[in-house]
Amino acid sequence: MTDLADIADIGADARRGGFSRHGYDRAELELREWFTAEARARGLDVECDRNGNLWAWWGPPGDGAVVTGSHLDSVPGGGAFDGPLGVVSALAAVDLLRGKGFRPGKPFAVVVFAEEEGGRFGVACLGSRLLAGAIAPDAALRLSDVDGVTLADAMRSAGLDPTRVGADAEALRRIGTFVELHVEQGRGLVDLGAPVGVARSILAHGRWRISVSGEGNHAGATLMVDRRDPMVAAAQVVLAARRSAAAVDGARATVGRLIPNPGGTNVIPSSVDLWLDARADDDTRTRAVVAEITALAEAAAAEEGCTVTVTEESYGDTVIFDPTLRDSLSEALGGVPALPTGAGHDAGILAAHVPTAMLFVRNPTGISHAPAEFAEPTDCAEGVTALARTLETLAR
Amino acid sequence: MTDLADIADIGADARRGGFSRHGYDRAELELREWFTAEARARGLDVECDRNGNLWAWWGPPGDGAVVTGSHLDSVPGGGAFDGPLGVVSALAAVDLLRGKGFRPGKPFAVVVFAEEEGGRFGVACLGSRLLAGAIAPDAALRLSDVDGVTLADAMRSAGLDPTRVGADAEALRRIGTFVELHVEQGRGLVDLGAPVGVARSILAHGRWRISVSGEGNHAGATLMVDRRDPMVAAAQVVLAARRSAAAVDGARATVGRLIPNPGGTNVIPSSVDLWLDARADDDTRTRAVVAEITALAEAAAAEEGCTVTVTEESYGDTVIFDPTLRDSLSEALGGVPALPTGAGHDAGILAAHVPTAMLFVRNPTGISHAPAEFAEPTDCAEGVTALARTLETLAR
Repeated sequence: MTDLADIADIGADARRGGFSRHGYDRAELELREWFTAEARARGLDVECDRNGNLWAWWGPPGDGAVVTGSHLDSVPGGGAFDGPLGVVSALAAVDLLRGKGFRPGKPFAVVVFAEEEGGRFGVACLGSRLLAGAIAPDAALRLSDVDGVTLADAMRSAGLDPTRVGADAEALRRIGTFVELHVEQGRGLVDLGAPVGVARSILAHGRWRISVSGEGNHAGATLMVDRRDPMVAAAQVVLAARRSAAAVDGARATVGRLIPNPGGTNVIPSSVDLWLDARADDDTRTRAVVAEITALAEAAAAEEGCTVTVTEESYGDTVIFDPTLRDSLSEALGGVPALPTGAGHDAGILAAHVPTAMLFVRNPTGISHAPAEFAEPTDCAEGVTALARTLETLAR
Repeated sequence: MTDLADIADIGADARRGGFSRHGYDRAELELREWFTAEARARGLDVECDRNGNLWAWWGPPGDGAVVTGSHLDSVPGGGAFDGPLGVVSALAAVDLLRGKGFRPGKPFAVVVFAEEEGGRFGVACLGSRLLAGAIAPDAALRLSDVDGVTLADAMRSAGLDPTRVGADAEALRRIGTFVELHVEQGRGLVDLGAPVGVARSILAHGRWRISVSGEGNHAGATLMVDRRDPMVAAAQVVLAARRSAAAVDGARATVGRLIPNPGGTNVIPSSVDLWLDARADDDTRTRAVVAEITALAEAAAAEEGCTVTVTEESYGDTVIFDPTLRDSLSEALGGVPALPTGAGHDAGILAAHVPTAMLFVRNPTGISHAPAEFAEPTDCAEGVTALARTLETLAR
């Protein structure tokens, strides 16, 4: 059986720990080859769509297919399960169904979406967003990584044609139902004592780039009173994010990425870029948290003689997964619980267009986006069984 | 005449602006070749000492030499003048003296010290510190850059033998007097209306690495109350540095470098490394500022459920330049002013061992360690004239 151990050598990050696998980088390209080989070994036909997503068809492609899958990229220094568990479980579910002689009565595909984490180009769910028309092709192609390589460059290097990206009505029409299996990114299933659950909703979620500009200068020769230090304003933004989110029930705000320029120990930075990840139950609360942080950032920058710009890099409103599909899946799986999640997923993007469901596999510590992310092998096997049963029901 | 325009293409940093030239990197090695060729073109004999410093001898090497020079490396995204101005002015002064038929009556050398800024390996004045025995060879060789390359590796790649680094009594004995010309890193000369001055003192100065460890986790799925976020504690350290230094007369504290690990937008970091640069008039004040920041860092980390370690990476007490030499130089130059500086220099390291002086050239804005660093060509020419007169007096 295909399992995560097969890809444990690809994209391991010796410096950060865990894995760094980002859209169209060496590790992700290697994983795409691995997936293609695994799918072909099962007699599935693999194709890459205009937006870089891989589709492995069991039988002839067609409209209204039952589709399952996830992504293979990671956050920097991420865990082994987020994304790949959904892909290997999809292949394992195909094996299970085949083993018992099942033949899908509808078109059936396993999908791998490109750059789900936004770890390279900054926008999460990039492949599914492009496919669904949730981001303009020009805006997407201009996104660049830390070395200034644009998405357009990266796609070209990977042998793809960037002029063809954008809303793909044909690909969307082919998805009748999408089911994504994912490791849970919280302790909901632990608290409920259940190995597997279904998704109820995803928080509203956005990313904002906050750029603070001041005056670069010498760390020893510049008096404290003469400074316009953007790091001081940036530190206040970090604390504002903590305070503002903590004051709103269910909200979360995080600064996980912060880059001083030029970044020398003996240099007052000329600018600092930091990224705000903010989420809450609904649009109103999310917007309120971000508005408060923005106002505090502007005040902190002004006080320091700096300027600040806040740019929305991505945003998605709350997702409520199809309740009929959710309840029928839960029932078919023996009454497994339905849970909300704070994490974004390609399933959340597709939910605006097609009936979509998610299966979660228990995570003993709830930790995710970190090397400690984990799921027990027995729970992963339960996940595969549940996914196979779900797909069998849907594709009958 | 040799001038800074000759090296304006070497190590230009398109991303940060200014120049990034660090010990034994491609740009610095190219600058060393450039210096070697310039010195040889003047008939000077160039040698590299055991610690990677370059010496260009005008006439036979010997003890008690008159030595002038500076460094060619920069901070990340630094200006064109800090370091290279002292080297090109030294060569220009040799040209001036030669042009008027002067022959030194004592051994005479132009020196280029290695990795003065500590931009790659973290410890400032690395070449002069090693030569003077102010850092243990083992500790120095273990220093590593952001990619994990150690000083030992870098020296080997540059064709040097790392087993030979360390206190170099012979090299030290050869220095009778050291004079370093440098762009001023403040507005002292602007305020005094003088193109050139001499140095009075250097602040006590150290660098501390502050590592905060928390719990890496998912930015969307982790409730605010469940977080142990080292970025929040790090932000409090940045603000503590500002507050603590501002409360002590003449003290400066800066966080110019901060690296979250893993550094993803949608990831609560598992750890954050930040570097504190702290300086004050004397050891007592500097230590007091650092002790206060350390205590605040420990409190902030504890409050967040994080741990913190503070490691001193380098430290140097206040330097008072040789008053006799300083006053005689000032007088010989027509009564130019004597100024303190907050910036560290190789001259500050050598001052503990040999009579040492510095000449400063006016900087119209006072900005340094940034692309805006500047000195007017006429002031630079005044600097060369003053340096030549100084060397002539000393080497007569």
